[in-house]
Amino acid sequence: MLRIGIIGAGRIGKVHTQSICNYVRDAVITTIADPFITPELEQWAKQNGIANTTKNYQDILQDPNIDAVLICSSTDTHAAISLEAIAAGKHIFCEKPIDHDIGKIKAVLNALADTSIKYMVGFNRRFDHNFRAVRAAVEAGKVGKVEIVKITSRDPNPPSAEYAARSGGMFLDMTIHDFDMVRYLSGEEVEEVFVHPAVLVDPAIGEAGDVDTAVITLKLQSGALAVIDNCRRCAYGYDQRAEVFGSLGAAACGNDAASNVQVSAANGVTGEKPLFFFLERYMRAYATEVEEFIAAVVNDTPVPVDAAAGLEAVRIGIAATVSSKEGRPVKLAEIEA
Amino acid sequence: MLRIGIIGAGRIGKVHTQSICNYVRDAVITTIADPFITPELEQWAKQNGIANTTKNYQDILQDPNIDAVLICSSTDTHAAISLEAIAAGKHIFCEKPIDHDIGKIKAVLNALADTSIKYMVGFNRRFDHNFRAVRAAVEAGKVGKVEIVKITSRDPNPPSAEYAARSGGMFLDMTIHDFDMVRYLSGEEVEEVFVHPAVLVDPAIGEAGDVDTAVITLKLQSGALAVIDNCRRCAYGYDQRAEVFGSLGAAACGNDAASNVQVSAANGVTGEKPLFFFLERYMRAYATEVEEFIAAVVNDTPVPVDAAAGLEAVRIGIAATVSSKEGRPVKLAEIEA
Amino acid sequence: MLRIGIIGAGRIGKVHTQSICNYVRDAVITTIADPFITPELEQWAKQNGIANTTKNYQDILQDPNIDAVLICSSTDTHAAISLEAIAAGKHIFCEKPIDHDIGKIKAVLNALADTSIKYMVGFNRRFDHNFRAVRAAVEAGKVGKVEIVKITSRDPNPPSAEYAARSGGMFLDMTIHDFDMVRYLSGEEVEEVFVHPAVLVDPAIGEAGDVDTAVITLKLQSGALAVIDNCRRCAYGYDQRAEVFGSLGAAACGNDAASNVQVSAANGVTGEKPLFFFLERYMRAYATEVEEFIAAVVNDTPVPVDAAAGLEAVRIGIAATVSSKEGRPVKLAEIEA
Amino acid sequence: MLRIGIIGAGRIGKVHTQSICNYVRDAVITTIADPFITPELEQWAKQNGIANTTKNYQDILQDPNIDAVLICSSTDTHAAISLEAIAAGKHIFCEKPIDHDIGKIKAVLNALADTSIKYMVGFNRRFDHNFRAVRAAVEAGKVGKVEIVKITSRDPNPPSAEYAARSGGMFLDMTIHDFDMVRYLSGEEVEEVFVHPAVLVDPAIGEAGDVDTAVITLKLQSGALAVIDNCRRCAYGYDQRAEVFGSLGAAACGNDAASNVQVSAANGVTGEKPLFFFLERYMRAYATEVEEFIAAVVNDTPVPVDAAAGLEAVRIGIAATVSSKEGRPVKLAEIEA
Repeated sequence: MLRIGIIGAGRIGKVHTQSICNYVRDAVITTIADPFITPELEQWAKQNGIANTTKNYQDILQDPNIDAVLICSSTDTHAAISLEAIAAGKHIFCEKPIDHDIGKIKAVLNALADTSIKYMVGFNRRFDHNFRAVRAAVEAGKVGKVEIVKITSRDPNPPSAEYAARSGGMFLDMTIHDFDMVRYLSGEEVEEVFVHPAVLVDPAIGEAGDVDTAVITLKLQSGALAVIDNCRRCAYGYDQRAEVFGSLGAAACGNDAASNVQVSAANGVTGEKPLFFFLERYMRAYATEVEEFIAAVVNDTPVPVDAAAGLEAVRIGIAATVSSKEGRPVKLAEIEA
Repeated sequence: MLRIGIIGAGRIGKVHTQSICNYVRDAVITTIADPFITPELEQWAKQNGIANTTKNYQDILQDPNIDAVLICSSTDTHAAISLEAIAAGKHIFCEKPIDHDIGKIKAVLNALADTSIKYMVGFNRRFDHNFRAVRAAVEAGKVGKVEIVKITSRDPNPPSAEYAARSGGMFLDMTIHDFDMVRYLSGEEVEEVFVHPAVLVDPAIGEAGDVDTAVITLKLQSGALAVIDNCRRCAYGYDQRAEVFGSLGAAACGNDAASNVQVSAANGVTGEKPLFFFLERYMRAYATEVEEFIAAVVNDTPVPVDAAAGLEAVRIGIAATVSSKEGRPVKLAEIEA
Repeated sequence: MLRIGIIGAGRIGKVHTQSICNYVRDAVITTIADPFITPELEQWAKQNGIANTTKNYQDILQDPNIDAVLICSSTDTHAAISLEAIAAGKHIFCEKPIDHDIGKIKAVLNALADTSIKYMVGFNRRFDHNFRAVRAAVEAGKVGKVEIVKITSRDPNPPSAEYAARSGGMFLDMTIHDFDMVRYLSGEEVEEVFVHPAVLVDPAIGEAGDVDTAVITLKLQSGALAVIDNCRRCAYGYDQRAEVFGSLGAAACGNDAASNVQVSAANGVTGEKPLFFFLERYMRAYATEVEEFIAAVVNDTPVPVDAAAGLEAVRIGIAATVSSKEGRPVKLAEIEA
Repeated sequence: MLRIGIIGAGRIGKVHTQSICNYVRDAVITTIADPFITPELEQWAKQNGIANTTKNYQDILQDPNIDAVLICSSTDTHAAISLEAIAAGKHIFCEKPIDHDIGKIKAVLNALADTSIKYMVGFNRRFDHNFRAVRAAVEAGKVGKVEIVKITSRDPNPPSAEYAARSGGMFLDMTIHDFDMVRYLSGEEVEEVFVHPAVLVDPAIGEAGDVDTAVITLKLQSGALAVIDNCRRCAYGYDQRAEVFGSLGAAACGNDAASNVQVSAANGVTGEKPLFFFLERYMRAYATEVEEFIAAVVNDTPVPVDAAAGLEAVRIGIAATVSSKEGRPVKLAEIEA
């Protein structure tokens, strides 16, 4: 029975807590840490059978009975807490991204070297049943040699300009998932990135130095190509689709909806919109994600998304940011590795 | 916090136990009873935080701390245990059917009269997200006045002839769900039934006096029509679809699959088969079902499927059985009410 | 070059004329006959390169240069003109039905006996690309042994009560196409018919002695089953679908629309309605139909829908009419053959 | 009755001839010219009711009874014949592209200036029912302000390296249709192009100086974005889809297939591949195209695709070619206008 500590009880920390309580048989959460812990949160923890709550995540790191931690705190703390947790010998699941600074990510990778610590990065979409089925089709050879990867990724509502300003920019905040998805679906590394950016949704986002819409093309090391289209606002909800085209065909997945009902009437044939946002769309994926982290720890097998994958997605995100600003294709080789 | 006892720890008893443990906040299972309880089952109960196991369901009925019971034992025990549980003042969720004998069902209805006991029958498909969305479209007036209800219901693999012989016949064992679905989707009562039966899958089922394939048409009290097609074997898995057609249009739902991936290749465009069988297809529906039972008890609101609905589906099943044997349309008025 | 006369220049006569002019290389229409011929019609004929128009179809039958006739006049004239055309030695394409009277149809079959005349009945749906692809899948063994045939057939708008009164009734006027489709898709003969009829669209149709909605089930000679659901009114247009289910799977076809565009917006994901009615839906099928008639004449090969098929569909229609009136299953053996 | 001459009786010349003969009431083809005319072709022309054939297209230009010409000869002759036809006062439908040389296209535009000659360029996809329905949704405001246009365009089989070498390159030979489609669907002009090119299908095409796969992104004048993905080979046939995303939603269209039949079996649910190639996919679009050209001449209304559109697509194609070779985004302003 693996003993787990949760660091950060915000939205995603709660999602993981719930997943472990509901679905994971061979793990138990013993402590939740959050600096802003409330009585409601304490009660919620109790109802979920969690023994301890604390304002100080050090209580978790110093607890010798805790085997693994989930770092669900704010992004700017991920790298530092990761280092401390590594020093404490805990296995680590860290929400994406490890950091936006390559140096800090590398410090984590270096600290992990020569340890037997499992370190997993939370790219939840890799655990979605649809994207997995596309990847499975690719691995089964159904599309042959990969030639073009296409990803559509649109959020229902734009963030505030304030959020955008401190988010690291759309490519590190939102597209980073799509960069990881390109690597996941293709099984390849990215060689070059070009961005056609735009501010079409909210001028304030542009004034804050960010963009809200973009088409990003990527050249992979085999010569295959990839393209991502992003928008921070989508009138019909969260739009997350992918297609992998190759020498023998294509595998594509679409959105999920609350039902597959079709209403035929005088004004056409109408189905439901996609599930609204990531909590609706990826709830099952989040559960699979933590299950697989725990399985990797328990069985001492490789984690499905390691720290190097976390680094690589950030490097592509930085390359995209440079391309967006400089209006030129940027080679990954230009970005610190 | 509602305290619950589970009577019968077979497949469906386990499903409900898991659903309550995972999803239901305001209920706790205190005891599981099963005459064939094993050490594995006891350990499983423990892992799910259930305090007691017993071979004797009377331990549950006599426990004054238990508020409600789920009757998940074999069909031939449903009515008798229901009567005992009513006498013990427990709220009751009873797996379908209450019984195949109308007299026994009526004894349960009579015992419930003038009590405040909640009694719910487990027609799980009413809680499926797709069928619910069809019903919601009907209730929202999107199809106008209901005119034709169509239900397709096919099982992946036929039962053994032995099972068929003691099942009460296909119409009471399998089609009963579809009869309830006709009532649920239309909001109407059935007036007449006609069956075109066939033995096309396994001659041994025919020799056992049952059928394995049928098309059943129903006349509803408003004059609207319904049709069900059934087969005990389906090469591509569980096939459960519905369509309601009316004066303003139609609402239809299809099967769910493990993913929505489409592979386009030289041999066509291929998607996944439907989810294999009822445990895969209706897992979420089962959880919703027990949640709504518990909510009805906790909030003292009507249960979504009452004992009268359980009776009516059996009456239609008996009418269908008569039609199948006698080769003529059978009025519901011919069947004891 | 086959020389053709068109008897009857109403809607369907014009459709066939156009099809032959546009698509058929080895046939030429030399004469069109219609008792109510107008100057507009004469001009239309001229524009289509047709040499002669006449009020008297005898001019066609007596023209030794004409090889084949298309009988597109009103239903009550089909049988008599067929007999005259047979006597004149013409090959014949006759719109469905030959007649509603079995004796008259048999007179045509008898007259054809021992001649080498090609006689084809216009069941146009057999030439639709979608229904043909279902039939092709069945013939290719993709569904295995046929077990259940399902046909949905709904017209956009009901006829007038006057039309209904003299139409022969819905089963001979509308469902006759579906009866033929059951035979076409299954490759089997019908043994028994049961109808659940209803008047849900227009009470005046009921007062005229007809019905406007029905679910019809059929038992085929192999023991396989079929079901047809009909409505004379459909808010979203012409609804014509089919499914054949068998031991190895199912083949199903849906409606066609003017485009496959999907609009995703705040109110859902919307596609186009089906094509409005038979002229839109089956325009290509009509062309294929006459092409295949002409090819059968030119190549002296069997016609795809012979007079016996025309007879059989009418027999099933009569059996359905009896079932509808008498409320009992009717064996085809009860109907004159 | 418009009198038409066809210049060039190759594949596309025959397609247009057939369309006019079959569908167009107010036009007649009087002469077909082709330098390699054969007896078979002469007979084919006769069967289609065309009075004259000639090896010399000058016979058409000099015939005062001919009102309009369709230039279906090889691409390198389009501009010169266009100039001669303008001088002869004929209305002109010219297959795409007018030329690959901007100077030659401009000479045609200049010659047209101050004449009342109708000059239409054959971008056939604009007349496809699906793409038109997307455009109609955009014009009807269903997607709001256009933000991202996505086009997928893949051919079933690659051309020979020899063809590629003299084709002007993939961007002028194949993508030119997609560039026009971006302009058509968005209603906007292109400002900048970036290409990620690849040779993934046939190394010989690369050796010939061309590419066979590409992802092309475009910035439009409003700031909206567009992306095209191309491949010269597609295992499942011709793949031509589009999506327009905007502030209120998205409109998307897919491929057409020979039927909409779905076969459900043990190995999944399978539908048909897309129609094989452009002749199958766009046959109806070709007919609509010439109908609309003739209607524009007869009614003296603007042609739906004018010479300026023909120029603009070539300019974008040249910009893409430069981007592909130089690996940088290219502004349309860099290309001669």
